[in-house]
Amino acid sequence: MSTQRQSVAEGRHCESTRTLAELILGLRFEDIPDEVVNRAVQSALDFFGVAIGASQHPLVEKMARLSAALGSPAQATVIGRKERRDALWAALINGSMAHILDFDDTHFPTILHGYTPILAACLALSEALSDFCDGDNKGINKVSGKELIAAFVAGYETSARVALSVHPSHYDRGWHITGTVGVFGASVACGKLLRLDVDRMVCALGIAASQASGLREMFGTMTKPFHAGKAAQNGLLAALLAREGFTSSKRSLEAERGFCHVMSDYPHLDRLTEGWASKWEILNSGFKPYPCGVVTHPAIDGVLSLRRKHALDHRRVTSVRAKCHPLVLELTGKSEPQTGLEGKFSIYHCLAVALVDGIVAPSSFTDSRVKDAEIEKVRSLVTVTVDPSLGEDQAEIVIELEGGHILKEFVEHASGTPERPLTAAELERKFSALISGHPDLEALNIDRLKQDIFDMPKLDDVRCLLKAASPH
Amino acid sequence: MSTQRQSVAEGRHCESTRTLAELILGLRFEDIPDEVVNRAVQSALDFFGVAIGASQHPLVEKMARLSAALGSPAQATVIGRKERRDALWAALINGSMAHILDFDDTHFPTILHGYTPILAACLALSEALSDFCDGDNKGINKVSGKELIAAFVAGYETSARVALSVHPSHYDRGWHITGTVGVFGASVACGKLLRLDVDRMVCALGIAASQASGLREMFGTMTKPFHAGKAAQNGLLAALLAREGFTSSKRSLEAERGFCHVMSDYPHLDRLTEGWASKWEILNSGFKPYPCGVVTHPAIDGVLSLRRKHALDHRRVTSVRAKCHPLVLELTGKSEPQTGLEGKFSIYHCLAVALVDGIVAPSSFTDSRVKDAEIEKVRSLVTVTVDPSLGEDQAEIVIELEGGHILKEFVEHASGTPERPLTAAELERKFSALISGHPDLEALNIDRLKQDIFDMPKLDDVRCLLKAASPH
Repeated sequence: MSTQRQSVAEGRHCESTRTLAELILGLRFEDIPDEVVNRAVQSALDFFGVAIGASQHPLVEKMARLSAALGSPAQATVIGRKERRDALWAALINGSMAHILDFDDTHFPTILHGYTPILAACLALSEALSDFCDGDNKGINKVSGKELIAAFVAGYETSARVALSVHPSHYDRGWHITGTVGVFGASVACGKLLRLDVDRMVCALGIAASQASGLREMFGTMTKPFHAGKAAQNGLLAALLAREGFTSSKRSLEAERGFCHVMSDYPHLDRLTEGWASKWEILNSGFKPYPCGVVTHPAIDGVLSLRRKHALDHRRVTSVRAKCHPLVLELTGKSEPQTGLEGKFSIYHCLAVALVDGIVAPSSFTDSRVKDAEIEKVRSLVTVTVDPSLGEDQAEIVIELEGGHILKEFVEHASGTPERPLTAAELERKFSALISGHPDLEALNIDRLKQDIFDMPKLDDVRCLLKAASPH
Repeated sequence: MSTQRQSVAEGRHCESTRTLAELILGLRFEDIPDEVVNRAVQSALDFFGVAIGASQHPLVEKMARLSAALGSPAQATVIGRKERRDALWAALINGSMAHILDFDDTHFPTILHGYTPILAACLALSEALSDFCDGDNKGINKVSGKELIAAFVAGYETSARVALSVHPSHYDRGWHITGTVGVFGASVACGKLLRLDVDRMVCALGIAASQASGLREMFGTMTKPFHAGKAAQNGLLAALLAREGFTSSKRSLEAERGFCHVMSDYPHLDRLTEGWASKWEILNSGFKPYPCGVVTHPAIDGVLSLRRKHALDHRRVTSVRAKCHPLVLELTGKSEPQTGLEGKFSIYHCLAVALVDGIVAPSSFTDSRVKDAEIEKVRSLVTVTVDPSLGEDQAEIVIELEGGHILKEFVEHASGTPERPLTAAELERKFSALISGHPDLEALNIDRLKQDIFDMPKLDDVRCLLKAASPH
């Protein structure tokens, strides 16, 4: 780190953390454009879908068992399940749950999965608010839909800006940005619901900075979704401690030894507050059409498109050649995945299931699907080369058939990107597919949940969402 | 990070995490030399002293209140207090508590404060073991003194080796090593008590790596001791999740995107396992004689020594000039501290109270002592210069008296270093001074606590320590 660079940066950004805290607290529901409110509502729908879809996963079972042994009381909902836990455990379990399928949203400029830590933390807090605030903060015992939307949007814009301030060096170095940066969004969104003052919001950011963690090395294991859960839990804890008057650095982001300099070799402190409430980073995000690494999506689009156009039978295919952005092999280069989770990080597996099944869904990433002999055979036909001139949302697919016939497809923009967003109908179909595997679907109140999500700006108390999303 | 360096390193250390896990599990009480056992016993004494001494601090009050609002059940002891909390909260509170005074031990090669996260986690676990293990692990429902010592020593040797593997780049970059590395020691020590197998111990290390966090930017605020508490809590959580069969990377330390490469610009993977059970890193640590930044200690020694030798009256002193290692100004250069906590990171305040009071104790770092007019006056007489040729445990003090008389002292090794360790009597005096401020000392069973600590290798169940260290 050059001293000159630092002092220039510090001179200009000596108050970034405080400025950000003021902007966060200043954001009101009324300031948020309809398009952004709509995105917040869609985020909630997608969040409940990916959470309910993974609510019976072994990772969730393990956390539910462990938290029971610790005697965690029934304060907040564990989504899709009968158990209830204290708000910190609920944030951890729900945040982990919603990232298990790798099917939550993506902020494209940074590959941050943004909504999960924020919503997991805010929803858990909404159920515990009266336990914290009764007595000294009369009236703060529930969260309205408008409050949740304003807190969520402020959290998202914060996470995305912190992500931009350390990108790309941060991710390149090996940090899992969803964990390291998610904690900030969760913390400030909860801080808004707790009506922290500016000084305490500054501390909430500081306590969040000190808990930022998560390594890319964990991709393909249960510890990856755990990062998202921990970001939710640690963010909620940061806001609650700040509310208690805990102290931290007042310059946790911009200081020489603050988050940005420590966790990025080339920090961009300007980006922490730039364009607040005028340039909405949440609109640079998208919902994932496939439950696997987002960098695999353009190539999957290409294979599915060729399969559909030519009614392909994979038994007639002799090779699948994908040309992709270099990140594809860096992030999803596992050529012989052994588990469903590893399959999500294998471009080879993703293209093989796309070709064989014609869809890429959670069922494509079970252990048995990854070990299926036919899939393995098709996987061995897939070769991937990288081309730095391609965008991250682009790919070229060449499929060769018996007899040498060649099929080609160039994907200009992957589905689910800002240039080619999922439609409202596609999002609802995704939600329906996700929840359909729940073993006790009748015990959930899915129609109520969907209606309440769509009506969120009118909700008096968002706890109804959690009630509808758990068995009754 | 050069690719060549990485591949050389990976070739040689492709199994460091697994090797370390095997060494940790292989370490038996019988393998540990008496000198190291004695150091473990002294560590426990010192830990309980610094914890009880800070047990009424506002930080602890805030955590106690918050955990009550979350409904945390009475599973484990909060040291020095009536409250009981679940094991994860107890680990967080006790670990934070024991670091509040900045008076816990120091591993000199890395400035790691080693024992706090490990003991806070292990002791909390000892009280909850039967809640986790009854049923499926018959017989594991208590921890003997020998088991605790073996787990603690394995944890300490692990933390210190992980610290050495990333030092000095890690600390230089801005990481608070007590937080980032403490989580490993806590995790593996708890893993040993839970009798994890090798595969699960590897995962405990992975889950620990993914939670490693803590920034030096937080020094002088409540978030600094919080790092030590979080290391304890996260380490315990890592071990408990690993026991449940949670998965993580199997190469979390040595991999290209593992802890060492991500958190150090120049990792030394050799050091992760080097000299295990032959070179004891815990013997490179020492107990602190003064409750403030360890780099201030040689200069404090010098001032106290001159004051004693010459029966100095500070009102006759016209200047105090200290020549110190460069880290002193880097870490403790606050010239005008405003709070007790900031005073710990002010070499100026440390030398002023040493000169005025003739001792440097927890009472030297209250807000009122820092703002005392006489102390402020003496503080203004202190100047500090750095000399890179001095060791971190060395200092030269020059005191000038009215009339121009000059007194000089060169400190060859600071007290509390391996070359000049505190004696058993000094340690007991420190313990007594620490606990003396407890508001309900009669309700603690201090004689029993001390006796049980000294008899630790013979204890059948270490829960007696916690019983004696809390009001009854």
